[in-house]
Amino acid sequence: MSDPVRDPAGITLTSAEIFAAHRGGKLAIAPTAPLEDRRDLSIAYTPGVAEVSRAIHADPRAAGAYTWAGRLVAVVSDGTAVLGLGDIGAAASLPVMEGKAALFKRFADLDAIPLVVDTTDVDEIVETLVRLRPSFGAVNLEDVSAPRCFELEARLVEALDVPVMHDDQHGTAVVVLAALTNAAAVVGRELAGLTVVVSGAGAAGIAVAEILLAAGIVDVTVLDSRGILHTGRDDLTEAKAACAARTNPRGRTGTLAHALDGADVFVGVSSGTVPAEHLALMSEDAIVFALSNPDPEIHPDVARAHARVVATGRSDFPNQINNVLAFPGIFRGALDAGATRITPAMKLAASRAIAELASERLAPNHIVPSPLDERVAPAVAAAVATAAVQGPVTGS
Amino acid sequence: MSDPVRDPAGITLTSAEIFAAHRGGKLAIAPTAPLEDRRDLSIAYTPGVAEVSRAIHADPRAAGAYTWAGRLVAVVSDGTAVLGLGDIGAAASLPVMEGKAALFKRFADLDAIPLVVDTTDVDEIVETLVRLRPSFGAVNLEDVSAPRCFELEARLVEALDVPVMHDDQHGTAVVVLAALTNAAAVVGRELAGLTVVVSGAGAAGIAVAEILLAAGIVDVTVLDSRGILHTGRDDLTEAKAACAARTNPRGRTGTLAHALDGADVFVGVSSGTVPAEHLALMSEDAIVFALSNPDPEIHPDVARAHARVVATGRSDFPNQINNVLAFPGIFRGALDAGATRITPAMKLAASRAIAELASERLAPNHIVPSPLDERVAPAVAAAVATAAVQGPVTGS
Repeated sequence: MSDPVRDPAGITLTSAEIFAAHRGGKLAIAPTAPLEDRRDLSIAYTPGVAEVSRAIHADPRAAGAYTWAGRLVAVVSDGTAVLGLGDIGAAASLPVMEGKAALFKRFADLDAIPLVVDTTDVDEIVETLVRLRPSFGAVNLEDVSAPRCFELEARLVEALDVPVMHDDQHGTAVVVLAALTNAAAVVGRELAGLTVVVSGAGAAGIAVAEILLAAGIVDVTVLDSRGILHTGRDDLTEAKAACAARTNPRGRTGTLAHALDGADVFVGVSSGTVPAEHLALMSEDAIVFALSNPDPEIHPDVARAHARVVATGRSDFPNQINNVLAFPGIFRGALDAGATRITPAMKLAASRAIAELASERLAPNHIVPSPLDERVAPAVAAAVATAAVQGPVTGS
Repeated sequence: MSDPVRDPAGITLTSAEIFAAHRGGKLAIAPTAPLEDRRDLSIAYTPGVAEVSRAIHADPRAAGAYTWAGRLVAVVSDGTAVLGLGDIGAAASLPVMEGKAALFKRFADLDAIPLVVDTTDVDEIVETLVRLRPSFGAVNLEDVSAPRCFELEARLVEALDVPVMHDDQHGTAVVVLAALTNAAAVVGRELAGLTVVVSGAGAAGIAVAEILLAAGIVDVTVLDSRGILHTGRDDLTEAKAACAARTNPRGRTGTLAHALDGADVFVGVSSGTVPAEHLALMSEDAIVFALSNPDPEIHPDVARAHARVVATGRSDFPNQINNVLAFPGIFRGALDAGATRITPAMKLAASRAIAELASERLAPNHIVPSPLDERVAPAVAAAVATAAVQGPVTGS
C-alpha cells in the first residue's frame, strides 16, 4: 500500500480506508423477482420461465422487454490505459470498471456489469463481444489505449446493433463542449468564433477536437508530444493524420507556444505540463481547461493570472470537467429511445443539456453543474433520447 | 402466448402473470459502496480506486479480495438444451440464466451474472471465457446440449483456474445420489449393493452413473434411446462409449425391460416414458426416480404400485429432486475454500450433506429436503469447502 491519497475534497484518504471500502468489490446482484415460496420459484424459474424463453425464441425483440439485457451496459476494458496508471491489465482495471458500473446505477438507474478482457487484440475483443451480444444492451468502452481505441470503437459500432461509446473519448468531449459553451458566454464570445488549442492527441484530445468542429468551431488546433498536428507531418498515426486533415485551418506548425500565440482556448488532455508564460501568449479573456488528472497541466491558481475562466478535472477546484456528467445520461437516453447507435447529434444534445443546467447562474467559477447534481442525468437522457428519435442514425 | 402453465404447487399460473413478473428482467445491480457525496466518489472511484488497481497490478491475487469477481459466478449457456425447449438459442435462454443467477443469490448469497454466448462452437466458447477470465470467479455451465457439454466442461476445467461445473450434469447427479442414499436407508439396503438402471445417456444420465460409481455402487446400467450401453455397441459417442466401459458389469444387452428385470433402482433422465409393466419387473422394495420434467417417465401414483420409494423433479409430488439443493452450496463452498476445481470428493460431500438434512425424519415420502429449506446451501457449502481443503485437486 502506498501513501495516503490526496482527496479532491481536501480530506486525506488513507489506504486502509480505501481498501476497506473496496473489500469484496463494489457491486452485488439484487434479484428483482420474489423467490420466497414455491409459487415464486414456479413463476421466476421452472416451469414459468419456459413461457418467456419460448416468447423470445419466437420473437427475439421480446428479449428487450423480458430480460435485463435491454437495459444492461457492459463496461468493457482491456486495462491498457487505466486512469493515470497506464497499461496495468484487465484484472487490475476491474475496480475502476466496478466503480463505473456503480455510477451508472447511481446516476441513471441503469444496470451495468464490468467485462474485462485479457487480450489487447482488437479483433479478439470485437469477436468476444459479438459472441456475448445477447447478454447486454450497450457497451461502454473504458480505459482502452489510443490509437487502438479508435479502431475498436469503430469496429464495435459496425459489428453490434447496440449503442457503443468509448467514454474516455466522447464522455470527455461532451462535457468539454458543455463547459466551453458556457465559458464562451461568460467571456461574451460566440462559440464558433473561438480559436481553440487542444494539447494531447490521444483518445480524449481527438474526440474533443471532433466535437468542437461538430459544434461549429472553425479554428481548432491539436498537438501531440511532438508539436502541432498538421498535414505536412509524416509521423502521424491514422487517427492523428485524419485529425490533422480536419483541424488547423491556418496550417500552423511548431510547438505549444506557437499554437497558443493569440489563442482563446487551451484544452489540456495531455498528462503534460504547460508553463505560465505560454498562457501569457493567449488572447485577453482566455479560457483554460487543464484536465489532466490528478495533476492538471498547470495549477488553476497560476492559470487564473492569465485566464478569465479556468477548469480542471478535480473536485477541489471550481468547474470540474467530469465524465460522470455525461455517460450515465447518454446511455440512458440511447437505451430509452431504443437507439442502436450514439450519433453526433445525440452527443451534441447531451452537451447542450449539461450546459443549460449550469447556465442559470453562470459565472467564471460556475460553467458546469456539480457531478453530484441529480438533475443532470435525467436531463441528458431526455435530450439524447429526443435527438436519437429525431436524428438520422449515421456515424458513431 | 400459450396456455396457462400447470403450476407444480397446484395453482394455475397465467401467461399474463408470468410475463409481468419477468418484465425488465429478474436481476439488478446494487452498488455496495456509498456514492452520496464527493468523499464517497473519491473513495469508490477516482482517485481512491487507483490505489486498489495498483495493488492488484502488483499482486493479481488481490483481485479476489478487492473486486466482486472472486465471488462472482458466470452462468454460461449457448441455449442449445434449454429446459424442455431444446435448442432455442442464446437470447431465448437468458430468462432461465437470470433465474439461475437469482437462485445463487437467494440460496447462497453469491453474485452471479448470465453470460449467454451466440455460438455453439466449443472452441469459441472456451476462448471467449478464457478472454473474460478476470471478470468472474467461477463458471456454472447451463443448458448446453450433449455430447458437446462433456467436452466443453472438460476443456474449461483445464483452461480456467476457477471452479467450473455443468449443473445439468453434476447438480442433478449430486441430488440423485443424496436421494438414493436415503432411499436405500428407507428400504433397508446398503447403497453399494443396489442394482441401478439409468434411463438416458445425456448430460444428466452419464453424470448420474459416474457419481453412483464414485459412491461405491458396482452394478450401474445406462440406456440411451437405442437400449443398454455396452462395450459391444459401435454406435456410441465418445462419452457414451466411456460410460459403457465403466458400467454394466454383467454385460447386459437389450431394452429397458431387460435392464429393469430384477433391478433395485430406476433413474429416469430421458424425457421418455416407462410403462408400469416394466416397473413390475423390478425387485421388491424398488426405488423409482422419474425425473423428466415437466412430464415424469411414469406418473408417481402409478409408480407407487410397483415401488416403495418414488421421486420426481416436480414440486407437486413428494421427494422433489431439484438441482437447487446442490448448485448454490457447491459453488459457495468451492469459492469459500478458494478451490480451483470442483472435485469428485466435493460432489460426494455435497451429496452427503443434502442426504443428512433429510435423514432426521426419513420416510418413503421424505428422502430429500425441500428446495426452499434454508439450511441446505450453508450445509452443502460447509461440506464442500471441507472436502476442497482436505481432498486432492484432481479430476473434475
